[in-house]
Amino acid sequence: MKKFEKHFRMRENDILEYVKEKLDFFEPNELLRCEEIGDGNINYVFRVTGMDSKRSLIVKHADIADRSCGDPLAVDRNRIEANALIHQGSLSPRMVPKVYHFDPVMSCLVMEDLSDHKILRDELIHYRTFDNLGRDLAEFLVDTLLPSTDMIMDQMEKKRLVKEYINPELCEITERLVFTEPFLNGRGKNSLTALDEGFANRELYSDRSLHLEAAKLKMDFLTKAQSLIHGDLHTGSIFIKEGSVKVIDPEFAFFGPMGYDVGNIIANLFFPLIRATVDRSGDENKEIFIYWVQDTIRELIESFRLGFLLKLKVNAREPFAEDENIREWYLEEVLKDSAGIAGLELIRRTIGAAKVKDITTIKDEDERAMAERLCISLGKELILNRVRIMDSDSYFEAFMRAQSH
Amino acid sequence: MKKFEKHFRMRENDILEYVKEKLDFFEPNELLRCEEIGDGNINYVFRVTGMDSKRSLIVKHADIADRSCGDPLAVDRNRIEANALIHQGSLSPRMVPKVYHFDPVMSCLVMEDLSDHKILRDELIHYRTFDNLGRDLAEFLVDTLLPSTDMIMDQMEKKRLVKEYINPELCEITERLVFTEPFLNGRGKNSLTALDEGFANRELYSDRSLHLEAAKLKMDFLTKAQSLIHGDLHTGSIFIKEGSVKVIDPEFAFFGPMGYDVGNIIANLFFPLIRATVDRSGDENKEIFIYWVQDTIRELIESFRLGFLLKLKVNAREPFAEDENIREWYLEEVLKDSAGIAGLELIRRTIGAAKVKDITTIKDEDERAMAERLCISLGKELILNRVRIMDSDSYFEAFMRAQSH
Repeated sequence: MKKFEKHFRMRENDILEYVKEKLDFFEPNELLRCEEIGDGNINYVFRVTGMDSKRSLIVKHADIADRSCGDPLAVDRNRIEANALIHQGSLSPRMVPKVYHFDPVMSCLVMEDLSDHKILRDELIHYRTFDNLGRDLAEFLVDTLLPSTDMIMDQMEKKRLVKEYINPELCEITERLVFTEPFLNGRGKNSLTALDEGFANRELYSDRSLHLEAAKLKMDFLTKAQSLIHGDLHTGSIFIKEGSVKVIDPEFAFFGPMGYDVGNIIANLFFPLIRATVDRSGDENKEIFIYWVQDTIRELIESFRLGFLLKLKVNAREPFAEDENIREWYLEEVLKDSAGIAGLELIRRTIGAAKVKDITTIKDEDERAMAERLCISLGKELILNRVRIMDSDSYFEAFMRAQSH
Repeated sequence: MKKFEKHFRMRENDILEYVKEKLDFFEPNELLRCEEIGDGNINYVFRVTGMDSKRSLIVKHADIADRSCGDPLAVDRNRIEANALIHQGSLSPRMVPKVYHFDPVMSCLVMEDLSDHKILRDELIHYRTFDNLGRDLAEFLVDTLLPSTDMIMDQMEKKRLVKEYINPELCEITERLVFTEPFLNGRGKNSLTALDEGFANRELYSDRSLHLEAAKLKMDFLTKAQSLIHGDLHTGSIFIKEGSVKVIDPEFAFFGPMGYDVGNIIANLFFPLIRATVDRSGDENKEIFIYWVQDTIRELIESFRLGFLLKLKVNAREPFAEDENIREWYLEEVLKDSAGIAGLELIRRTIGAAKVKDITTIKDEDERAMAERLCISLGKELILNRVRIMDSDSYFEAFMRAQSH
């Protein structure tokens, strides 16, 4: 049997050999360099660079175990990521990296190198601003989410796609980390870095009306096959440089509620806003950043609303979507879901096992305590009042209520 | 190649040969008789009887086309029916026919012969009554629906089952006949037998608030993978004799909203009630029947409520289900869905392409007009007010409002 006919965990040298054998991306006989650049997440990520052509590509390689914890994890995630990138790339070409090659045997996904871009989360932590970010993200959401809904896609074709994207193992991670552990004491690895256990007890573990709403959102996540969603759309999955936004890492993709993607993005823009809000350091970029990020959140939500309704009106094949009232109802449901998800993300990224740097890297403990309190208060506001949170104003009203708690 | 290694449409003689080769159900060398007993529906149904043993069995055989209209239809429906019968049989053994053999190549499902039973719809049309029918049906619903929900089944295992039961072609039939055509003039083969077009125009085609609610229920049917449902649970899919109820024909099974099964049963018990209500013939069994069928509907709904909550409390593994409020909410959602579906079924079986005999065989045209009006009025009451219809009293209040229209 040849070397790449049976899965094994590949190292740098294997990757070099693999790229030479499988792709004609580089010059013949060109000297190639390979470096592992994964950040300790669940997969291995290699960059291969041609010394003559200066061209480069990325190989994302899945092993049969989760790299970070060693637990078994289906390599099928690599197939789902490749298919989702191709799907999203066809719908939003300028915002998705190109896929050069996918190999289900070796679980190797070879794609465009984005090393001239930076990770959005890191940029926002440093109070850097970008033109049109809200509008770009809204465009990505509308363009990638709506086409696979029953409103637009042929309803039989959609069911076949649902089957292809059933993603039990990665959904299980989300179900546990986002929807369950933050609300039930002793179930997960909950912790707050600057607040005491009493706060979590009072605000999260003993609030039964909050549990009811979290349970409703969890049941939706488990059952509502609305659209092929990205499934992990936070600012760490977004690469940016001036004039270019790229969305990566859709290995959590499956048919779920659209609001899951929309709400995740919104929450992950509130984290740097909260970071800046509690910052007393006098950073000279802070005020501009606060103004810009608020504006970006507004632009994201309002562009999403308009773009969604327009695309639905133009492209729907579902006969009921000819009725404007029905299109409005459909959007409103997505917006309510989005607010609920934004609330869950704010909470779980503050208390749960996968925290965000936007909050954990706040050095001053008082400021960090205030940020943690704000994240959880805003999260609860959004979850509990989500049926009324359908535009950007209502998000900022919720933020004001959270600040006055 | 041997005879049964490639699919073809089998006739009586093929079935005899097949049964002798594949099963040892009959005595060796026993003389067998085979008759086709299908009622012109989408499949072929054969009964095979042993002349010595007097034993018999049923062979359900799917061709690559819909028998009734000749349109292509995936034989995969036969696999889904076999798997669903085995699944439901394991959960509710006394109410599901035994499966003896299933062959995915020939699309042959061999099962228990129920020819000592009668079709429930025909019995109800003749005002026959049966002890405990409401309780039996509630038991079937609770026992077959709850175990495959995310509340009880392992959530990863459930996703694998969802995949196995993706059923695009048969769902498409339901989506069209139940959720779309009855509300949109000119889309389907709508007709009323005793009312004029003006009635349908006024009550169905031009009622936009009704369209909005139908669209909501349709989107739920298209997206809500709540539980493995039967998918076609009307009184023509139920066989009965004194002391025994059997539910057959789950070829429409898929993961959908539980309320779809519950609401279908309820509506199909209202049809004979409405038939009896408009009957001025002085049939001596009529009064007892009306009393009995009302009681049966009450018993069905109330037993379902109690049985559902109890089974959920005892068997749930979802942590949120430990909270009584959350279990109550979960039941209430199913009940609201059920009322909406009952309403849709009442309407579509009156005006749509697949009418029920309970109404079409009413001989007197005035009585039939009254029955059609009642079905549609009650249907609308149930759809439009479904968020408040969560017990049997509210169904009968809706029925009284429909009668006073």
